[in-house]
Amino acid sequence: EEITGIGDDCAVIPLNEKEALLVTTDMLIEDRHFIRNKITPFDLGQKSLAVNLSDIAAMGGKPHSAYLSIGIPANVEVEWLDLFFSGINYLSLQTGTYFLGGDTTKSPDRLVINIGVVGIGTLSTIKRRSTAQPGDIICVTDFVGDSGGGLKILLDELPIDKETAYLVNRHNCPRANIEEGKWLSKRDEVKAMIDVSDGIESDIHRIIESSKVGAEIEINKVPLSKTLLKVSEKYNWNACEIGLSGGEDYCLMVTIHEDHV
Amino acid sequence: EEITGIGDDCAVIPLNEKEALLVTTDMLIEDRHFIRNKITPFDLGQKSLAVNLSDIAAMGGKPHSAYLSIGIPANVEVEWLDLFFSGINYLSLQTGTYFLGGDTTKSPDRLVINIGVVGIGTLSTIKRRSTAQPGDIICVTDFVGDSGGGLKILLDELPIDKETAYLVNRHNCPRANIEEGKWLSKRDEVKAMIDVSDGIESDIHRIIESSKVGAEIEINKVPLSKTLLKVSEKYNWNACEIGLSGGEDYCLMVTIHEDHV
Repeated sequence: EEITGIGDDCAVIPLNEKEALLVTTDMLIEDRHFIRNKITPFDLGQKSLAVNLSDIAAMGGKPHSAYLSIGIPANVEVEWLDLFFSGINYLSLQTGTYFLGGDTTKSPDRLVINIGVVGIGTLSTIKRRSTAQPGDIICVTDFVGDSGGGLKILLDELPIDKETAYLVNRHNCPRANIEEGKWLSKRDEVKAMIDVSDGIESDIHRIIESSKVGAEIEINKVPLSKTLLKVSEKYNWNACEIGLSGGEDYCLMVTIHEDHV
Repeated sequence: EEITGIGDDCAVIPLNEKEALLVTTDMLIEDRHFIRNKITPFDLGQKSLAVNLSDIAAMGGKPHSAYLSIGIPANVEVEWLDLFFSGINYLSLQTGTYFLGGDTTKSPDRLVINIGVVGIGTLSTIKRRSTAQPGDIICVTDFVGDSGGGLKILLDELPIDKETAYLVNRHNCPRANIEEGKWLSKRDEVKAMIDVSDGIESDIHRIIESSKVGAEIEINKVPLSKTLLKVSEKYNWNACEIGLSGGEDYCLMVTIHEDHV
């Protein structure tokens, strides 16, 4: 088996006949990927790790350890950092990921977070972006668009009630679909897999480009939560558009042989 | 063997009876760790990788693969990026390190670079910060202070001649002491090892704190290059002070049993 790098959710480094090391890294820059006063430090810690765990999940892997680099501007309080680290630690423990440290440095103004995660995958079952087959059915492991809706609520500073709070939480505290990824990767009928980070509209392009196939998404079949539909109706949003391109869903998108759906 | 994280140059993850994975990560933020118009993109690419390879060297390891996350502001040209990647590629090839990609994202203003490196170490010979013994002699693998001198030349905008160019190059294009690290790690008389990133004055503290020993540095024995001495005399610098605390030398500092020096 070959070492593969750029072009999938993780780099794949075969360790022996059966297993491979999976490596992924993600950078979050303040005011680009998050706004500091729109997310609690605990949630930001969790989310910084979750987005990487999601890449491991997309290869059907099991996370092993996480490495943080953080650039801290002078206006970040120790209490903020404590909660941020608590968020990372909480999700590390919950997912059995060792949090093995990294690099702490000063930043001139913006908070910068980089987390790298090392995971373990089974060579025979690793799913890639490039293995979709003509005729496969596209599926996702969760509703899409909740996170995009949550972001709109934060940016438009809309009032927080039960529904909007749910969407904001889906944005600020996404769950990596690790167990789903492991389960899906073991099934032969699952052909290609990717995590939904930029929205299914962008991410399906990654699959079709590397698999050299086409794709059709039936807009009325995109799974949207009742909450997103309800809030969208209230604020006159196009829920479907948010579902397609809102992004940061961090569920998994797979293509499955048509006989098995 | 146990997994160890925070507190040494690399995290150490045993792979089998003999070998361990070494993992390190380092963040460089514009205007904190480098000034964009004081370093060529090619050198910055090399340096971003070299500082990580230096951490692998400090454990006596062999680098395997490198992972880049980069936050790119709008004012960075494609040509700049091409040269930056060429610098990383050049040093990757030179050191047998696979450059397996990572994360590319936009940054609101400052360039942010994070490189993580995965290496392989031999469990029985990995040297740590915590294993210095009373009576050991402190040694370094290269002159110290050249890099600190080079930084002063850049910051003070001093004229570039043969000598100052040499110091600037030592600052902008440090060499990771990988072969030295592997050689030193195989020797039983070498007790503790660390790479000199913040200057020997700071970095010896890391060894004495984790090893619970004291240390004495004889100032007149700190190895300074003729070039640093010459330039220091010209500009009335305290060369010794630069040697002790200039930092970014990226040579290795070891403690060696006194009978073997």
